[in-house]
Amino acid sequence: MTTVGLLVLAISVVALQKPPISPEVHPDRSVTFRLVDPGATKVELGLEGADSVPMTRDGNGVWSYTTGPLAPDIYGYSFNADGQTRLDPQNPSMVKPNLVWSGNMVLVPGDPAEPWERQNVPHGILHHHFYHSGVVGDDRDYFVYTPPGYKATARKKYPVLYLLHGYSDIANGWTEVGKANEILDNLIAQGRAKPMLVVMTFGYGVPGYASPNGGNRGPDVEKKNYDNYRESLLKEVVPAVESDYRVKTDKADRAIAGLSMGGAETLYVGLNNLDTFSYVGAFSSGGLRDIETSFPGFDGAKANEKLKLLWVSCGTEDGLIRFNRTLVKWLKAKNANLQALETPGRHTWMVWRRNLIAFSQQLFR
Amino acid sequence: MTTVGLLVLAISVVALQKPPISPEVHPDRSVTFRLVDPGATKVELGLEGADSVPMTRDGNGVWSYTTGPLAPDIYGYSFNADGQTRLDPQNPSMVKPNLVWSGNMVLVPGDPAEPWERQNVPHGILHHHFYHSGVVGDDRDYFVYTPPGYKATARKKYPVLYLLHGYSDIANGWTEVGKANEILDNLIAQGRAKPMLVVMTFGYGVPGYASPNGGNRGPDVEKKNYDNYRESLLKEVVPAVESDYRVKTDKADRAIAGLSMGGAETLYVGLNNLDTFSYVGAFSSGGLRDIETSFPGFDGAKANEKLKLLWVSCGTEDGLIRFNRTLVKWLKAKNANLQALETPGRHTWMVWRRNLIAFSQQLFR
Repeated sequence: MTTVGLLVLAISVVALQKPPISPEVHPDRSVTFRLVDPGATKVELGLEGADSVPMTRDGNGVWSYTTGPLAPDIYGYSFNADGQTRLDPQNPSMVKPNLVWSGNMVLVPGDPAEPWERQNVPHGILHHHFYHSGVVGDDRDYFVYTPPGYKATARKKYPVLYLLHGYSDIANGWTEVGKANEILDNLIAQGRAKPMLVVMTFGYGVPGYASPNGGNRGPDVEKKNYDNYRESLLKEVVPAVESDYRVKTDKADRAIAGLSMGGAETLYVGLNNLDTFSYVGAFSSGGLRDIETSFPGFDGAKANEKLKLLWVSCGTEDGLIRFNRTLVKWLKAKNANLQALETPGRHTWMVWRRNLIAFSQQLFR
Repeated sequence: MTTVGLLVLAISVVALQKPPISPEVHPDRSVTFRLVDPGATKVELGLEGADSVPMTRDGNGVWSYTTGPLAPDIYGYSFNADGQTRLDPQNPSMVKPNLVWSGNMVLVPGDPAEPWERQNVPHGILHHHFYHSGVVGDDRDYFVYTPPGYKATARKKYPVLYLLHGYSDIANGWTEVGKANEILDNLIAQGRAKPMLVVMTFGYGVPGYASPNGGNRGPDVEKKNYDNYRESLLKEVVPAVESDYRVKTDKADRAIAGLSMGGAETLYVGLNNLDTFSYVGAFSSGGLRDIETSFPGFDGAKANEKLKLLWVSCGTEDGLIRFNRTLVKWLKAKNANLQALETPGRHTWMVWRRNLIAFSQQLFR
């Protein structure tokens, strides 16, 4: 007996429409992006790390653009048709999780594979936790990466990196876009990073702080965002992780790092709590309105004594480079030892993945 | 010192554009959907469970549609503008994970909350595992839900439900769209379901089986898809779960269920391996070309002896209802005891969430 289901019908309809492949990664690492929109008068491609470029329309209303050969990386992208953001309907499985902006992703693979690519190495596990935050007053989540070989029933204990996302991201930003788990899997397999847990939180201290319409913002709310995020991290997440997992609970075995808003939160938490974390990494940080009042009584000599690493990095094409240079100058004026890095790049995940790769290798040595 | 970052600038730009809110859930549970597209000549809303409806354009090129009061549920939706699928750029954080079709989701909350809504109850943990499948020859993943109170270091052992997604879904379909973890959290908290682990796999046996352009298909490939999926489940996933988690490994403590293609896989695995699972649940199943040859030598009396529950359900407005009626008839002709359910509904997640709610309560009693 032959049965023909809705499934087969639906697949046939898709086949009849013959949608164009998008994105199409070519062997020379150039990429063709395509969007069907016969009615649009102007369509642009916004590719992460570059200026928007106009796409070209063919006779069937298919807009396309082919890049030159690209450096191996994961590129975020979106289309803009007559002023409106468009996701790529041909790439539904690679949509960036985000509270504010819509975008897809495409992997341009390296040869050999880059550290953010899935490779034939032992893989860690991502544990997704859900809880009600009494501090913030919302239901939220966090992820815990346990490295290959981690066993809840074994005696071995591990150090922990707390890794914070940026404004507009959600708790899975560092895994879905930042590929933190792949990066750690690969670095650990190569012996370049120590086996560690990575805890990735939901990085807001105020409900509704980020939304497509601007969110719950303003100077007072910003302060509350930093204060409540810090409290939820220190009073809720860290104790839960240290109770639920086989982790070391010395300051020497705790690191904190973050990008953009999460970089500011990292500094806010790390430099104001010198007895909690030994490693502090701020990637392309921004969002602190005033440095001096953000770190009351900050003493570089004391920080040098307490911290094993203070890292401040930013891309030279990032709009936040000026803030970061000011921050570095301020820290140096306070006699703080730090690794101040300027790398190529804009305010992008390409920069942050490379920051994590470099930063994580220095931890827990 | 005041610093103004790229962040603040970006937020200002967003604010200036004043994008419309979409979707907007009103107090009476009606929902307004909006899409900006001044150039489109016809825009439709496709809302899960209903026929497409035309949207209305205002003077600014904003297309909108307001539903009547909706039953509390999670609704998938997408726009279609002049024949092209559009995701909702105002709802970037609720995009359905899918290999083929693009869509967003909106929650219309119940009062009291429905079982798929996050509630103030203890929450289980989702563990995301990554591995290379020697059977299928690809890198893949699966999720393991552990119930509240589960401890790897405790003596207590739990039964396991293997829960399979449908064609086009990925491994997180049952959590991101099906809300299996919320459903189990809530049913367990109410004492309506036994605490159990739920394992959610990547449900294909052939690489590239599902893609926006139709995928790697055809009758021979379909057979291989079922055979290899079964082998990867039984030879790779089940042994890994039973080694890594505190679970009972008796047949009496293993259940399998799935939706659509996953329903067919459930029957293919369950009815052909009567010594492995005691509970078999097929939700809106479809995709088996021939029932008789799919279950060679199937003997209802033997199945009755071996199975505690054989469940076959389908929505009456589902295109697969005919297949499911034929299947039920065939099983009854073989003298198999079964729960055959017809419920209201189409081929939708509304049906499958309710199937899981009802099915899971009967397990491991």
